[in-house]
Amino acid sequence: MQILDPSDIARQYRDELRERLQSSRHRLKLVGFLSSEFSPSKTYASYTKAGCDDVGLDFELRHSDRLGLEAAIDAANGDPSVHGIMVYYPIFGGEQDRYLKDLVDVRKDIEGMNSFWARKLYHNDRYIDGSQTKKAILPCTPLAVVKLLESASARTGLVSLKGKCVTIFNRSEVVGRPLASMLSNDGARVYSFDVTGPLLFEAGIAHETSIARRTALQESDVIITGVPSREFPLVSASEIRQGAVCINVSTLKNFADDIAERASVFVPRVGPMTVAMALRNTLRLYDNYHAGTES
Amino acid sequence: MQILDPSDIARQYRDELRERLQSSRHRLKLVGFLSSEFSPSKTYASYTKAGCDDVGLDFELRHSDRLGLEAAIDAANGDPSVHGIMVYYPIFGGEQDRYLKDLVDVRKDIEGMNSFWARKLYHNDRYIDGSQTKKAILPCTPLAVVKLLESASARTGLVSLKGKCVTIFNRSEVVGRPLASMLSNDGARVYSFDVTGPLLFEAGIAHETSIARRTALQESDVIITGVPSREFPLVSASEIRQGAVCINVSTLKNFADDIAERASVFVPRVGPMTVAMALRNTLRLYDNYHAGTES
Repeated sequence: MQILDPSDIARQYRDELRERLQSSRHRLKLVGFLSSEFSPSKTYASYTKAGCDDVGLDFELRHSDRLGLEAAIDAANGDPSVHGIMVYYPIFGGEQDRYLKDLVDVRKDIEGMNSFWARKLYHNDRYIDGSQTKKAILPCTPLAVVKLLESASARTGLVSLKGKCVTIFNRSEVVGRPLASMLSNDGARVYSFDVTGPLLFEAGIAHETSIARRTALQESDVIITGVPSREFPLVSASEIRQGAVCINVSTLKNFADDIAERASVFVPRVGPMTVAMALRNTLRLYDNYHAGTES
Repeated sequence: MQILDPSDIARQYRDELRERLQSSRHRLKLVGFLSSEFSPSKTYASYTKAGCDDVGLDFELRHSDRLGLEAAIDAANGDPSVHGIMVYYPIFGGEQDRYLKDLVDVRKDIEGMNSFWARKLYHNDRYIDGSQTKKAILPCTPLAVVKLLESASARTGLVSLKGKCVTIFNRSEVVGRPLASMLSNDGARVYSFDVTGPLLFEAGIAHETSIARRTALQESDVIITGVPSREFPLVSASEIRQGAVCINVSTLKNFADDIAERASVFVPRVGPMTVAMALRNTLRLYDNYHAGTES
């Protein structure tokens, strides 16, 4: 089994991005909003800063208490010197965070969290203009997984997802559901599991299914896990098929060590690629909405 | 203590609405979407139908499985014969329902659930046009509470919320947070409690506070509860001030019987008013967006 380090792939994307930014006449600025002492948020912010430094984007971390965040986002929305906005969730947790996600101006929403972008994704509407020259934004984590899967597939000779089977454990609006939709739009048959049970995605459309975990895993060429619980029974070698590609998105370990016996490629984490995709989205939004509007 | 039956107040609003609809040249149609056998949803749908029959609105209940609901909503959005859309939640439960709420065309969203309307509410932006002739939609349940509070206040001689104190148990995006925002914009000081602790709303702005439940209740002229848990310690006579107005929004009982000793008015439920407000919103949306566009 090969282990694919997401840092290596992220570096390639950052290299490409640095070149493109160097040829740009304008200096782009990304603003991150931190409003808690939540440790993963602070870590994520420091990774964003390091990524920006590496590619040549300005980064400014703004601290705001949670109740002042709405006004702070509004100010950044209206500030022409800000090209990208990133909010380190959770802020309130739950449905109030959804409200904040929709506050971020879609033209600066480098995380692709606004329901405007979600709707485009679920409708497989890949452009923002009728002439299809400007590509839509995809959410960072699902996009990171897709790119890592491309790299992993290149190593195993898997050339296309067409007709392939994928199992995803997680159907959140941030990771699992957009990912199931995207991979199924690329031709895969995707089994999507969460605590409420499985669904089958084909060509972007979800269908009811009663498939068992064991059966889904046995069929799967690709297995992606994003389960934030230690109660989740780790995916083990005995459950997966020979040569499966395994991607662990959760910050917790969702795969047993023995998958090394059967998996072809294992991606232990995606974080560095998520950051790289946020930086990449910053340039895409700039090209789509801001380029040419500045003096 | 007087008990205010929301059915009586709802009837007054329906009477007014029936008259206004009778003078309208067009017949309005409301479509409800039911996608589960969840009993409260079916009950709510039957109340909507009864309300529509009473005021002279056409009502059509459409059954859709949960995975077909998005397409069904899209079809209703695009159908010029449909003037109002109501979805009986929960469908998936959790954040995927938020996605569905944002799918409903704001011009047909009689529940005021779309984040477009939420944003207007939280910014205290009460109109949809610059000349301030067309009023924005408010979400049905908070609006129902405001109207019931007006009726209750009239009975106790409370003429204005200005300088008054309100405690609300519930800070969901469907009931408690919009309600706290609305009442504080009307001049009240509002203590908002949920499982994560209290906040104080003044003039639409939330502030951190560490006030205890007991202190908040002792200060409060109005107490509103929307707690969907049997673990919640019932609000009792010993906690409230003489003459308080008490409104129970939850389908569970959140007040102890002994409040009869001290409360001035008790509203045991708001359901009938919620339905009346949805019907009222249907006419408002029609007047704002559809009137004059049909032959």
